[in-house]
Amino acid sequence: MELFYAYEVSGGVCYLDAEESGHCVRVLRHRAGDPIDVIDGLGTLYHCSLVDDAPKGAQAQVLSTVPGFGGHPYHLTLGCCPTKNNDRFEWFVEKATELGVDDLVPLIGERSERRVYKTERAQRIALSATKQSLKARIPAVWEPLSVKSFLEMAHQGDGEVVPGDDRASLKLIAYCFEEASAPRISIREALAGFTGTDVTVLIGPEGDFSPEEARLALRCGYVPVHLGASRLRTETAAVTAAAAVYFRYMQ
Amino acid sequence: MELFYAYEVSGGVCYLDAEESGHCVRVLRHRAGDPIDVIDGLGTLYHCSLVDDAPKGAQAQVLSTVPGFGGHPYHLTLGCCPTKNNDRFEWFVEKATELGVDDLVPLIGERSERRVYKTERAQRIALSATKQSLKARIPAVWEPLSVKSFLEMAHQGDGEVVPGDDRASLKLIAYCFEEASAPRISIREALAGFTGTDVTVLIGPEGDFSPEEARLALRCGYVPVHLGASRLRTETAAVTAAAAVYFRYMQ
Repeated sequence: MELFYAYEVSGGVCYLDAEESGHCVRVLRHRAGDPIDVIDGLGTLYHCSLVDDAPKGAQAQVLSTVPGFGGHPYHLTLGCCPTKNNDRFEWFVEKATELGVDDLVPLIGERSERRVYKTERAQRIALSATKQSLKARIPAVWEPLSVKSFLEMAHQGDGEVVPGDDRASLKLIAYCFEEASAPRISIREALAGFTGTDVTVLIGPEGDFSPEEARLALRCGYVPVHLGASRLRTETAAVTAAAAVYFRYMQ
Repeated sequence: MELFYAYEVSGGVCYLDAEESGHCVRVLRHRAGDPIDVIDGLGTLYHCSLVDDAPKGAQAQVLSTVPGFGGHPYHLTLGCCPTKNNDRFEWFVEKATELGVDDLVPLIGERSERRVYKTERAQRIALSATKQSLKARIPAVWEPLSVKSFLEMAHQGDGEVVPGDDRASLKLIAYCFEEASAPRISIREALAGFTGTDVTVLIGPEGDFSPEEARLALRCGYVPVHLGASRLRTETAAVTAAAAVYFRYMQ
């Protein structure tokens, strides 16, 4: 099964950009009349018939729609500090997309060595991994922002998480440093005790979060967790967190 | 904490090869008398004092030993068919080592596009990831062998897995093809019902296992499992399986 991405769907027609059109028409040699499957990147799959096989602007007529195609029963916001080695972070973007993530937030921590991050490549990788893993919704790759900005923006006025309250969101912060002001539980235990579906996990930079960042997170209702006994690289920790959520909701 | 690998430990002395010695003496500028931490690759950490800082053959005196350093409470044998793109398989070797794996078996399936696999680089990656993730035991990277050879060799005479029998080993095969002769359960469910510690998981090539290979695995007592709703790349599936076992035994 091959999926194509439509930058616009209107009036029962899916519009492919030059790159998707070229792949569809030049590479895979689809011609007008061929059945093709198109995603809108927002969660819907469209079974279509190719009506215009222009190699730079193909169009397909919608025959039927499949809402929520390849979706998962949770909303995962994964904040991770970009690694010194950019390949490692892009690998994380691909793997988290395959497993299932909704919002990918490149965080700049006080101790981050990488202070600047361009999201264009990560967005292309997220699109490619979404199609490859047969999903219709492309995770949103946020513009990078500081840990403090993310906490203040995303969690203004948030109270503590109420365990077992399925309206609550579960907010987890993974860190290693010792001067932790709160005892950590395993991410597995934290997820097992949660009955909701909205999960946020924060993974720090190689140098970990600063004590100030961790304290602010705790004030915002974050639960400090560990990812087990192994010392994991930043990108491994982030993918392991995505896998933990994936397993929590696995049927 | 920095770990060095000793190719030999005898008479209370750890012997470092040229590469490890160069890293210890040239790069990190350790000198005779410095305390260093050395692993034997078999599971033991040695707290040492560097006694010979020769940049091509350093030696360290053992002061104390820590058996089972960085170990995990299970034995995981992970068989995976090398991917067309070698980087992807080497990435899997690194990540599985970080999470915890004991035997890495490059499998050549009937449908494998890659029929040949050289293990030298994978062994170096496993050593590096072992040190980086603070473990003393380096996973064994097997020489590649066919799926059928592995099943016949490793499981000669094996009976069916007895659920709940903690002396039994749990043997899982993940595959996607439809003409499955047995219904699949999730790897999470399969692990949850297992009380032992010896787990084997087989992950097929991009083209999946052949029906013959799957049938042979079932005869050898393998339980067919799925890795959830997402369609995962081969190397993602293999790391996800390692993560599933890691979480199963997480405290």
